[in-house]
Amino acid sequence: MADQSRFAQRGSTEAVEEGRALAPKFDADGLVTCVATDAQSGEVLMVAHMNAQALARTIETGDAWYYSRSRKRLWRKGETSGHAQRVVEMRIDCDQDSVWIKVEQAGAGACHTGRRSCFYRAVPLGKAGAVTLEFRDEKTFDPKSVYRGG
Amino acid sequence: MADQSRFAQRGSTEAVEEGRALAPKFDADGLVTCVATDAQSGEVLMVAHMNAQALARTIETGDAWYYSRSRKRLWRKGETSGHAQRVVEMRIDCDQDSVWIKVEQAGAGACHTGRRSCFYRAVPLGKAGAVTLEFRDEKTFDPKSVYRGG
Repeated sequence: MADQSRFAQRGSTEAVEEGRALAPKFDADGLVTCVATDAQSGEVLMVAHMNAQALARTIETGDAWYYSRSRKRLWRKGETSGHAQRVVEMRIDCDQDSVWIKVEQAGAGACHTGRRSCFYRAVPLGKAGAVTLEFRDEKTFDPKSVYRGG
Repeated sequence: MADQSRFAQRGSTEAVEEGRALAPKFDADGLVTCVATDAQSGEVLMVAHMNAQALARTIETGDAWYYSRSRKRLWRKGETSGHAQRVVEMRIDCDQDSVWIKVEQAGAGACHTGRRSCFYRAVPLGKAGAVTLEFRDEKTFDPKSVYRGG
């Protein structure tokens, strides 16, 4: 069971947007979206999801916890790779369905493919029809040696 | 109908993560998550969603288009407020279910509440139990005069 009881009940739009109560809007799957940026560079490292428990643990501990939709379980970033994220600041958006965390990224990167950021490919703009992605970031670590056992 | 045909078919995990084909993973509602950051400051301005049509139009025009889940329609950022977003760069993440756009934000801000960013409140960390949000950003415009007719 998600520990949703620790958060405030959602009130009026005015209360949600202009109030001081944390009243997250979890979606049908019980999740909010989380954007993690590098506290130094500002780079977006990853976009993931938090259920109520992951959100509560992140707030309480200052370590980034997520909910894996594919593995259907709570997950502390870095528990397998050692590439933990220490949260420097957390923000919540107007309608409280997304959080933004500025993190100190431990280790060589956040992405399971071996890059610092998950957003290592650019989409060229201004073209109609098929586009060819452009790689922007090199691998900074070998994911096979870091994610042993997945 | 979403114009999903303009994108590549999704192949193997290897192809999706290490390939040059744009093959977005739209969710059950036909959406990908989009994070918009300020191209100058790096600040996260908003998190929203794009359906296939919004993604295609953004790529083709360089203007940020989104899909409004509440209004159930395609939406060009700024069409009501004038606060358009010119996309400087678009990135896509490893599994291609999230995009990151770096934008030049026109006007006084991105948030319908009258702030530059939707993430104007901080969630204090390190506390168990109820937390009190802390306002970090002042209003930069009067939403009532900018969002006439919603």
